[in-house]
Amino acid sequence: MSKEIPYKIYLEESEMPKQWYNVRADMKNKPAPLLNPATLEPMTYDDLRPVFCDELIRQELDDTTPYIDIPDEILNFYKMYRPSPLVRAYCLEEKLQTPAKIYYKFEGNNTSGSHKLNSAIAQAYYAKNQGLKGVTTETGAGQWGTALSMACAYLGLDCQVYMVKCSYEQKPFRREVMRTYGASVTPSPSMTTEVGRKILAEHPGTNGSLGCAISEAVEAATHQEGYRYVLGSVLNQVLLHQTVIGLETKTALEKYDIVPDIIIGCAGGGSNLGGLISPFMGEKLRGEKDYRFIAVEPASCPSFTRGKFAYDFCDTGMVCPLAKMYTLGSGFIPSANHAGGLRYHGMSSILSQLYHDGLMEAVSVEQTAVFEAAEKFARVEGILPAPESSHAIKVAIDEALKCKETGEAKTIVFGLTGTGYFDMYAYEKFNNGEMTDYIPTDEELEKGFQGLPVVPER
Amino acid sequence: MSKEIPYKIYLEESEMPKQWYNVRADMKNKPAPLLNPATLEPMTYDDLRPVFCDELIRQELDDTTPYIDIPDEILNFYKMYRPSPLVRAYCLEEKLQTPAKIYYKFEGNNTSGSHKLNSAIAQAYYAKNQGLKGVTTETGAGQWGTALSMACAYLGLDCQVYMVKCSYEQKPFRREVMRTYGASVTPSPSMTTEVGRKILAEHPGTNGSLGCAISEAVEAATHQEGYRYVLGSVLNQVLLHQTVIGLETKTALEKYDIVPDIIIGCAGGGSNLGGLISPFMGEKLRGEKDYRFIAVEPASCPSFTRGKFAYDFCDTGMVCPLAKMYTLGSGFIPSANHAGGLRYHGMSSILSQLYHDGLMEAVSVEQTAVFEAAEKFARVEGILPAPESSHAIKVAIDEALKCKETGEAKTIVFGLTGTGYFDMYAYEKFNNGEMTDYIPTDEELEKGFQGLPVVPER
Repeated sequence: MSKEIPYKIYLEESEMPKQWYNVRADMKNKPAPLLNPATLEPMTYDDLRPVFCDELIRQELDDTTPYIDIPDEILNFYKMYRPSPLVRAYCLEEKLQTPAKIYYKFEGNNTSGSHKLNSAIAQAYYAKNQGLKGVTTETGAGQWGTALSMACAYLGLDCQVYMVKCSYEQKPFRREVMRTYGASVTPSPSMTTEVGRKILAEHPGTNGSLGCAISEAVEAATHQEGYRYVLGSVLNQVLLHQTVIGLETKTALEKYDIVPDIIIGCAGGGSNLGGLISPFMGEKLRGEKDYRFIAVEPASCPSFTRGKFAYDFCDTGMVCPLAKMYTLGSGFIPSANHAGGLRYHGMSSILSQLYHDGLMEAVSVEQTAVFEAAEKFARVEGILPAPESSHAIKVAIDEALKCKETGEAKTIVFGLTGTGYFDMYAYEKFNNGEMTDYIPTDEELEKGFQGLPVVPER
Repeated sequence: MSKEIPYKIYLEESEMPKQWYNVRADMKNKPAPLLNPATLEPMTYDDLRPVFCDELIRQELDDTTPYIDIPDEILNFYKMYRPSPLVRAYCLEEKLQTPAKIYYKFEGNNTSGSHKLNSAIAQAYYAKNQGLKGVTTETGAGQWGTALSMACAYLGLDCQVYMVKCSYEQKPFRREVMRTYGASVTPSPSMTTEVGRKILAEHPGTNGSLGCAISEAVEAATHQEGYRYVLGSVLNQVLLHQTVIGLETKTALEKYDIVPDIIIGCAGGGSNLGGLISPFMGEKLRGEKDYRFIAVEPASCPSFTRGKFAYDFCDTGMVCPLAKMYTLGSGFIPSANHAGGLRYHGMSSILSQLYHDGLMEAVSVEQTAVFEAAEKFARVEGILPAPESSHAIKVAIDEALKCKETGEAKTIVFGLTGTGYFDMYAYEKFNNGEMTDYIPTDEELEKGFQGLPVVPER
């Protein structure tokens, strides 16, 4: 007789993970190393020191240690907003009339509004521990910038955020949250960096992009004494920190003897998806269990489903190392009507390798359908989801409806990464029936691929 | 040996309250009845039926039944976002270097962003149960309107919201959240009601007020077949539903053998404060325990601390019954620089009677100090608080600092009613150093009192 499943499963503090899980340790095919764009040689610890914090570089390069202790200070910060609930979507199941059992891990119950805080506090902690004055970063939709501002305010670190210009203008309130936490926020591209001035000279009317904001933030970090650059997604270290999501999910499921069949996450740079699936992927890699993993991305920015698995620049200004990943080319910018986040041109090297090896699936969805799913979810489950998270909702609903057809009572777990309170501009477009879809043509994608650097097979 | 207190105390579903607590049953001096403005006689069940839902009228008039069962459907909805955490403010205590132990009951972890959902689902449920088509209401800052939209979307009821015009314009995103939940939102005063047209004719440039939006919503309800009016604060029924806050708080405290010395809540119409303190006030009324209760209100809208305890109209259009309460007069509108919510001219009759009988205290605070407290709290506790809630934070900090002086390790509990994600306009003013304070003069208040109706002593 199985235990009755509550609407929300909260772990006790004592059940919270004390270590992050490093999925690379269990990967037979390790993700390809970062390369120095000048020499095309793997980046070493010393190569990376001007840009990143020392301990974070160690984590970035470590592909053998399976478990890494979470420092006490970070554990205490986690206790302020974690554990996050694993929610049984009883109301959504009833609405869909599906035999499927749907669960979501909800990471939005904190002021950053998303899972980003899990890595922000870790990166800020290591920066502080190294005796740095501050950190620089970029932000797109603003979730990462908010999370980093919160972590820096807590630790007393300076925080400088380059915010993609169109977001800066469309989301003045996101900017104010960061300012309330004491961060300085600069619209990117800006005149404050050399790379920003160069981009502005070449593209005077540009609305900015994540790749461009990254270039500016890296330059700002390397030109100030006592500063380093930090990044909210894509990197191995970020996926490592985000495994608290998956580890908590796994403990919560095991507490109630629940075995998931399908695990679904939205994918921009891969931080949430990687964090959610890593512990489960570990079991699959070790041959202990099998699960279906589904990455969901926007049809307007389809790096997994239509990108190339190749070395590419992580930023527009080409100041960062090269990473091997599924990419649309570092010059790729989603069409102007794109509203749903997940707009990065590349993808985590770890997830790219796992996808390349056939260990996970990927699908792309169009944004109008995503917002329809978001609205349906909001009305029955109460939570107004972030557009990013709603990509996962859309596919979770699709899978639950397949179960309705086949009569299978599959267990579906998805990551609800955050809330949409600062995305009402996009919701307004949807509410007014003004939202449109766009799928890039093969020709458009080809143009992006032409910017890929030539890297000999290693 | 006392148990170690976690950062957040979550109850199990089985520990959640199954009944609301009706504090009036334990009050020796009952709150004065609502009066018919025409006859000055107490409003009967039948008098109230055109405006309110039947079961809610029963709850409104019942001042003898101590516990009222919460229907299963409402309990299930509560499970979607409750129990809310009782948080130990370890980080704030450390920041203040106080021996005080500070706890807050955090009601903001739901999409309405506040405690308002507790009563919204109850009122919508009884409307649905009565076979109604929909409900009308007013909203100021937008929390109540959002909560009611969510509850109505869940139950499939139509929801018509009259939103105070200045909020409608300053908070377009609040409006879009309500629209996402399917509500229709009209800026008030509007041309859609007789009372709205009258107010617009008399005050062409008016930005609206809660009292005026109430008048419009009541008219809209009584002029449509199958509609009733619902209200998010002030009424006895609302305080009743909100006792889930206090009941959960009490259970959580008792689980860890914590006895509060001081309980603090912000007070606009009294819904949060009444809900939080009722179960503790019951103990005090029955002579079982003693606590200090502190109501915190804005210095710019000081109904408790500078208002009159008298019968007054609940709305500007004078279409509602008269209530005996601490009031600034139904024509009172806070000064234009007022940013912190809690702008209603009156106060719950229950709380007014308790205050009048010396069972609780009240203090008023200025908004710049409130936002300073909000910022301090946000930076150490992570949560960006609603301006309303920040009134309670301000006084909790003041009391904790008094403990620091005296060396007393008092236990302070306060209500953190919600989040400030839709109040960034006010935070922006604060961040830019543009926020000002205003305390109404005695002459200004006297003008408000002149509008009080003449009601003979009963």
